[in-house]
Amino acid sequence: MAIQLFRFLLQGSGTTRRHAIICGKRHFTMSMSLSKTISDATTTVRESMKSALSMGMSIGGGREKDVGTLLYQDLVPWNNTGNKETHEFLQRLVLILLDFIDKTNDRNEKVLDFHHPDQLLEVMDMTLPDDPQNLDQLLTDCKDALKYQVKTGHPHFYNQLSCGLDTISMAGEWLIATANTNMFTYEIAPVFILMENFVLKKMREIIGFPNGDSILAPGGTISNLYAIITARHKKFPRYKTDGLRALDSEICMFTSEHCHYSIKSAAMVTGLGTDNCISVPADSKGRMIPSELERLVLQAKGKGKIPYFVNCTSGTTVFGAFDPINEIADICEKYNLWLHIDGAWGGSVLLSKKYRLPRFAGVEREVITRQNIH
Amino acid sequence: MAIQLFRFLLQGSGTTRRHAIICGKRHFTMSMSLSKTISDATTTVRESMKSALSMGMSIGGGREKDVGTLLYQDLVPWNNTGNKETHEFLQRLVLILLDFIDKTNDRNEKVLDFHHPDQLLEVMDMTLPDDPQNLDQLLTDCKDALKYQVKTGHPHFYNQLSCGLDTISMAGEWLIATANTNMFTYEIAPVFILMENFVLKKMREIIGFPNGDSILAPGGTISNLYAIITARHKKFPRYKTDGLRALDSEICMFTSEHCHYSIKSAAMVTGLGTDNCISVPADSKGRMIPSELERLVLQAKGKGKIPYFVNCTSGTTVFGAFDPINEIADICEKYNLWLHIDGAWGGSVLLSKKYRLPRFAGVEREVITRQNIH
Repeated sequence: MAIQLFRFLLQGSGTTRRHAIICGKRHFTMSMSLSKTISDATTTVRESMKSALSMGMSIGGGREKDVGTLLYQDLVPWNNTGNKETHEFLQRLVLILLDFIDKTNDRNEKVLDFHHPDQLLEVMDMTLPDDPQNLDQLLTDCKDALKYQVKTGHPHFYNQLSCGLDTISMAGEWLIATANTNMFTYEIAPVFILMENFVLKKMREIIGFPNGDSILAPGGTISNLYAIITARHKKFPRYKTDGLRALDSEICMFTSEHCHYSIKSAAMVTGLGTDNCISVPADSKGRMIPSELERLVLQAKGKGKIPYFVNCTSGTTVFGAFDPINEIADICEKYNLWLHIDGAWGGSVLLSKKYRLPRFAGVEREVITRQNIH
Repeated sequence: MAIQLFRFLLQGSGTTRRHAIICGKRHFTMSMSLSKTISDATTTVRESMKSALSMGMSIGGGREKDVGTLLYQDLVPWNNTGNKETHEFLQRLVLILLDFIDKTNDRNEKVLDFHHPDQLLEVMDMTLPDDPQNLDQLLTDCKDALKYQVKTGHPHFYNQLSCGLDTISMAGEWLIATANTNMFTYEIAPVFILMENFVLKKMREIIGFPNGDSILAPGGTISNLYAIITARHKKFPRYKTDGLRALDSEICMFTSEHCHYSIKSAAMVTGLGTDNCISVPADSKGRMIPSELERLVLQAKGKGKIPYFVNCTSGTTVFGAFDPINEIADICEKYNLWLHIDGAWGGSVLLSKKYRLPRFAGVEREVITRQNIH
């Protein structure tokens, strides 16, 4: 299996294109057992052509040159005359992807053809020889990777995050993979930088921060970390150069006992220590109890600590509960605490005319200086 | 322009699929000015068909139903009988992508058709109306997004990170966008979790850590942060619960004055403070001077600080210099310091028979407990 497919992992972890270049040039490959390889490769091409015809298209008809025996270096950019072969290779890949999309949306298909690791290794040899393999092999690898993959867009898939494979969103991803740029500067991504400004402005308007600012983050955990760092920098600018030990006394933060684990994790990362991330009891529906928050703030002050940050969860991980923003914001105003809303799970409710109130009542208040919506 | 294209940004920042679902359901769209819309949409379809024929394929020939007037909800998964229309829409997108790939590899094409922001806004209306637009509009938006985008794979493109649009890597990205999963557990991504194990094992073997362990990170900055946190946890486990202020004295780290800014940034994030991230002078070629490192370690000890971490840069941002690993490792062993190698820029040299030595001489040493290669 071509290591470029391992870009799944790199991509999944948000790494930059450079990772792929390293892999791409070395071009590790992972081979199937020979007999299986040949039969599968043949099958792939046959089925591709069959499904091509069934969708009323033919790839070059009889004039077609078989690109299956070529190697990656026969395609662009390695071979600058390889446009036609590149087109044909990608068209064959697309047929495999379309087939997966059909199966994903077919209720008669299994969500997953489950194999235990040892069983999967019997049908997929994952060793990494150094020699490149031909394009038929790569297409076979693509097909097998999807064959044993969970159909996260399947109507009967009810696991994490994914709910339906949105065709337009996926098309957007195909495009961005092809655009292959980054968001460093306007010069490197003019269209997308402008998009970012317009989209974030729209999101701020939806939240109720007409004069706010925003950035995109690599996920909820980092968003929460950003919030905790931003608040710390705003309230204790000296810590940046001098460190936490230079502050007059210990600072502490507060969050519901039902909050996402990334909040306590951030307390560890930032050097506060998890003991300085104080858990506030929640009611029977999983919502933070404001009176408990105030009691614990006063208790911490009594111990000589400096309360500075409160995390309000809008959509807890287990109950899907929404902490009462207004009541918590009142306490934050009273004690001059930074209020952050973790809307990673429930932020989309801001788009709902029906549920925005009361779930997000108070979200527009000045005291709220950071949101984490995704 | 369909907000799903804004997944570029979300993707670019490594966010999870859920972001797209939020957008996908709401389906914001950004419209072009009406006259331009119509002409462009027409042009898109015409050119698509033309280029389709030129590559020896036709989309459904005369029998084709024009999907351009349909909306996203006419496609799967919103319409579970929309497979044929979904295929046609994606096939038309692919023609646009293939055209961009051709132009990217054509030395006669501009790397960028540059427009200042105000000029770009004259040809692209980025307002976000709530009503969905038809598929022709989405295809036109895709086309325009690429039209004004930098061709980062162009032979004459010499800016950050990108160097050539590797067809196989891109194909892998199309596949992972279609697979649309995450790396949480084996159950959600069996094939890719196995890939991860094999690839990381191979990478550890290449480095010389046969008994090591590894994870994929969202980039170099986070990798460096992970290293600094891991070292801190190993040497001062109490800090996790009690925080830095509970440690007996101030801890400090060392890095070349030419290191990546993410090292000082991590010192700020982790609460050490940038003053406790001590810059070690580099020689005329940008390499850390080991004797200077030892001098500064002793100086810090003299001030009652606890040195605990040294960052060794393999491939500095400006000079591309490689700090001398063996000499630095000797000092780390002598003073019991954690040695981290930031190979974000130069880590790929590990794959080179010619340059691995001397650039990475000592990389396999036990004292080195963390690498950051991407």
